[in-house]
Amino acid sequence: MGSNRLAELDVAALNADPRVIWNEDVLRFSDTDMNGHVNNAAFAVFCESGRVNCLRGRLGPTREAGGYFVLAKVTIEFKAELHYPGRVRIATWIRSVGRTSVGFGQALFDEAGRLVATSEAVTVSMDGATRRPMPLDAATRDVAGGLLRSPP
Amino acid sequence: MGSNRLAELDVAALNADPRVIWNEDVLRFSDTDMNGHVNNAAFAVFCESGRVNCLRGRLGPTREAGGYFVLAKVTIEFKAELHYPGRVRIATWIRSVGRTSVGFGQALFDEAGRLVATSEAVTVSMDGATRRPMPLDAATRDVAGGLLRSPP
Amino acid sequence: MGSNRLAELDVAALNADPRVIWNEDVLRFSDTDMNGHVNNAAFAVFCESGRVNCLRGRLGPTREAGGYFVLAKVTIEFKAELHYPGRVRIATWIRSVGRTSVGFGQALFDEAGRLVATSEAVTVSMDGATRRPMPLDAATRDVAGGLLRSPP
Amino acid sequence: MGSNRLAELDVAALNADPRVIWNEDVLRFSDTDMNGHVNNAAFAVFCESGRVNCLRGRLGPTREAGGYFVLAKVTIEFKAELHYPGRVRIATWIRSVGRTSVGFGQALFDEAGRLVATSEAVTVSMDGATRRPMPLDAATRDVAGGLLRSPP
Repeated sequence: MGSNRLAELDVAALNADPRVIWNEDVLRFSDTDMNGHVNNAAFAVFCESGRVNCLRGRLGPTREAGGYFVLAKVTIEFKAELHYPGRVRIATWIRSVGRTSVGFGQALFDEAGRLVATSEAVTVSMDGATRRPMPLDAATRDVAGGLLRSPP
Repeated sequence: MGSNRLAELDVAALNADPRVIWNEDVLRFSDTDMNGHVNNAAFAVFCESGRVNCLRGRLGPTREAGGYFVLAKVTIEFKAELHYPGRVRIATWIRSVGRTSVGFGQALFDEAGRLVATSEAVTVSMDGATRRPMPLDAATRDVAGGLLRSPP
Repeated sequence: MGSNRLAELDVAALNADPRVIWNEDVLRFSDTDMNGHVNNAAFAVFCESGRVNCLRGRLGPTREAGGYFVLAKVTIEFKAELHYPGRVRIATWIRSVGRTSVGFGQALFDEAGRLVATSEAVTVSMDGATRRPMPLDAATRDVAGGLLRSPP
Repeated sequence: MGSNRLAELDVAALNADPRVIWNEDVLRFSDTDMNGHVNNAAFAVFCESGRVNCLRGRLGPTREAGGYFVLAKVTIEFKAELHYPGRVRIATWIRSVGRTSVGFGQALFDEAGRLVATSEAVTVSMDGATRRPMPLDAATRDVAGGLLRSPP
């Protein structure tokens, strides 16, 4: 996600777009670190919350049994410090659908509605038995395609 | 907390008692472990969420600046497995107020209202400058005393 | 674990006792919290490291396939703050062997050899298929019994 | 970090290069998730361990008091599953030195020496008082420059 495109992130458009899936995490005291703010690795956890919420809630029902998704690549850009206590709202959308992969875009907001981070990720469909990449089945691809949103 | 007293935990009484302070955490995928359920250390995190929520929300406003609380002892009894996704509701109450310490009781419930864990903890008031125990000031002691609830 | 017995913890005896199993964790920046020290929930993680190391390394080889252990109860007493960076050394021993349970004692030390926490825990043998308690098999009970160490 | 450059990562060169700083984390049971492997967010923690080890150990001694580094952007590419128990070895090097920023490259290996992840990150020097970006002082810039290693 180039910095130039990040600057163009349109929050109003995110809110208005039904293909964007929202979820919320509650900040925990243990998310903080000795710098006094929420640790960067907690942001990776919040991004995972959003992706898994989307994968299980939207793509899961159509998936063949025994499959799971693993993360192949993730980028997080940190825009503002996040402080305990509070909540974080996570917007998740699908940026790409490949033969075995689903790409995500995400934006994280604090309770005041301020953008605190953006993320891009690519997840790969895996076969539970072989633990090797497994093509998306047609039904899952259809659902993912219906949620596909142009970058960013 | 003796097992016998745990068996007597009265959830209806917890719900009816205004001295019991409730908060909620959202389960995260990373809370799970390879046994397929929420890891026991996440329960320690949930208990901390409840204690800090009580300490900051109720006792914090009266506290002298520069003080903080540390955990001296915690016991957690695990009653049922907790599974992702979902939420955990945490009931927190004050069991004891000492010269430098505040004791807590807690009960954790899953979304179906099932008791998943109980906890007891003792926290100690610390002086931020010396990092040594610091007596509770009178105002904080008054607030804590007003929340005091007989065991269990 | 009563405070009086904790005071009697004999570190030289722990070091000399072959029934005590030692392991080490490396502190991580994300273990710290906004109080500037290692968060209490990280201590629960370190205790788990020691118990799992003992269960898998010593009791695991004799266990019937498909079983696992869950934590039924844990108590942690915090003796001193732990600061990043550094390592934590964990002494783990077996305090009790029941029909379906194994009880543990633990002591945690910082790199300077200072006691930072003690812990007691009870774990229960579970059947992987039914997720219900499962009696310890004779071989596992024998191994555990050979490691049994009188409290504390 | 383009996928093509990742493929060219030369482990022998990493091992031979004195500008590459190595550290090690011990895997913890709680690092695993319900997919049976080490959770992706733990990789973010390991990367942080390596960066902080470098920042504190090499750049810290020359830094003016009161400053700290925050993470501005991180990318992690996951190359292989990591399984408990074990250790992870982290290679960290400096890829760029800017007016207020230091860029890192990292490679993570399991105990068998297998590459499990690569990472790129940009950290920004912050003023502890204002919590705003603060230019690197000359001494820190000199140390960082001496460690600078051409991408990847």
